[in-house]
Amino acid sequence: MAAVMTVQQLNDFLGQVFEQVADDFCVDEVEGDTVTMRLLTSDKHLRPGGTISGPSMFGLADVAAYVVTLAHIGPKALAVTTNCSIDFMRKPEAGVPLIAKARLLKLGKQLSVTDVLLFSEGLDAPVARASLTYAIPPKSMG
Amino acid sequence: MAAVMTVQQLNDFLGQVFEQVADDFCVDEVEGDTVTMRLLTSDKHLRPGGTISGPSMFGLADVAAYVVTLAHIGPKALAVTTNCSIDFMRKPEAGVPLIAKARLLKLGKQLSVTDVLLFSEGLDAPVARASLTYAIPPKSMG
Amino acid sequence: MAAVMTVQQLNDFLGQVFEQVADDFCVDEVEGDTVTMRLLTSDKHLRPGGTISGPSMFGLADVAAYVVTLAHIGPKALAVTTNCSIDFMRKPEAGVPLIAKARLLKLGKQLSVTDVLLFSEGLDAPVARASLTYAIPPKSMG
Amino acid sequence: MAAVMTVQQLNDFLGQVFEQVADDFCVDEVEGDTVTMRLLTSDKHLRPGGTISGPSMFGLADVAAYVVTLAHIGPKALAVTTNCSIDFMRKPEAGVPLIAKARLLKLGKQLSVTDVLLFSEGLDAPVARASLTYAIPPKSMG
Repeated sequence: MAAVMTVQQLNDFLGQVFEQVADDFCVDEVEGDTVTMRLLTSDKHLRPGGTISGPSMFGLADVAAYVVTLAHIGPKALAVTTNCSIDFMRKPEAGVPLIAKARLLKLGKQLSVTDVLLFSEGLDAPVARASLTYAIPPKSMG
Repeated sequence: MAAVMTVQQLNDFLGQVFEQVADDFCVDEVEGDTVTMRLLTSDKHLRPGGTISGPSMFGLADVAAYVVTLAHIGPKALAVTTNCSIDFMRKPEAGVPLIAKARLLKLGKQLSVTDVLLFSEGLDAPVARASLTYAIPPKSMG
Repeated sequence: MAAVMTVQQLNDFLGQVFEQVADDFCVDEVEGDTVTMRLLTSDKHLRPGGTISGPSMFGLADVAAYVVTLAHIGPKALAVTTNCSIDFMRKPEAGVPLIAKARLLKLGKQLSVTDVLLFSEGLDAPVARASLTYAIPPKSMG
Repeated sequence: MAAVMTVQQLNDFLGQVFEQVADDFCVDEVEGDTVTMRLLTSDKHLRPGGTISGPSMFGLADVAAYVVTLAHIGPKALAVTTNCSIDFMRKPEAGVPLIAKARLLKLGKQLSVTDVLLFSEGLDAPVARASLTYAIPPKSMG
């Protein structure tokens, strides 16, 4: 599946539609059916000891699934998450950026399904895995 | 299953162990195997239009499952979420508090399993449902 | 939410559209947004020791979510499961029927979301919980 | 992570501990942290039209997660599934074997977490994805 949006277009679109959180995320790479993103960590994302909070990990997985869907259907502000299953497997390293690798497994007319692995940058073992379903708006609403 | 901590003890404990987020949550009621909590909404929890963000809904469900577990095992700072499955079903009402009703379904030696329904206060139809698994630390670590 | 099909109509419809498995399941009760069903256990559903297998528990939860959806949209053979999250919490009692209590949480145009609790008949503590999403076919395909 | 059991040992062990279903499954390959298995399809796994049923897909994913866990901890009959999240994405091809590719993402003392993709043999697009958590028995019970 080839992407129809570039890294630059995806970052620009996030800045327009998610003004409040666009400073938190950066798209690094789009390649085939995968997207790599990162959380631009600040104090609000941290727990005592400097590790990244659960809601911040969820938020990165959620945005990554949205972005990899957009990358293949084009800019649509209205897609909504309908389901997320997430396994927290290891504590993220303190002081290390959190990276998401999202892979689009299905792109249907009504739904997309994405797998996401979260990593502390530079480490091989994933800190979390998630799968997310997005409801895609009908064409006339795009 | 009778609770071993009161509403006051749970709110105090949250204030001690989750200093950074304790101002975001309030335990309203503990009764048998259920806990009712609320998100004390502020700007950081909102999306354009005034609705509550996905990560904030996840965060409330996560804390509610933790609190209903604590209510039955006593104060243990080290319990960690290992899995969450969440369905987003309706858009929360703008300007209305978000309420969680958490029910402890299993309390084992190593794991607890909790069901959570999220509501916009005053409305019957839930905005989201979640199930969460917590890993309970061995007694010597409590 | 009032049901539009009766227990008899639901059992008849299952017999028509799922001929191969209709002998495995029985709808006991439909009331408001909930349905109670049972697995008619035979050897193929059992594991050594006489407990019910994981796939059989999944199968009962899946059919119960389908039936509670049908009960509210009317007979549509084409609805398909898109997602299931299931927690296995206790070993089912050997030699005791398995009961599902399914509650329809959302009935949208494209999706339904259902919560299911599975019980060994006569015992209070659930053996498993599941949440399932069904994709509902467009009206012209019903 | 290197495996500690061979394909032959895994198939033999399945035959011993899951006598009732061992004829349904075959381990094809073990390599690093992944296992490839197949469902040996017979009538009981099929739906009208010849496609494989949901419980049969769940059953293959469940056994594959168990086998990839065993492959790394050695033969332990007592490991139990505690959670499964599964997305059904495409209808399996009728008359084509169902293949599972399972990848062990975490092997802890108490829990393993595995990702599974299910394929109709010979086709690139997965028919389903699942993630499963297994509770690993303490060493003295192995």
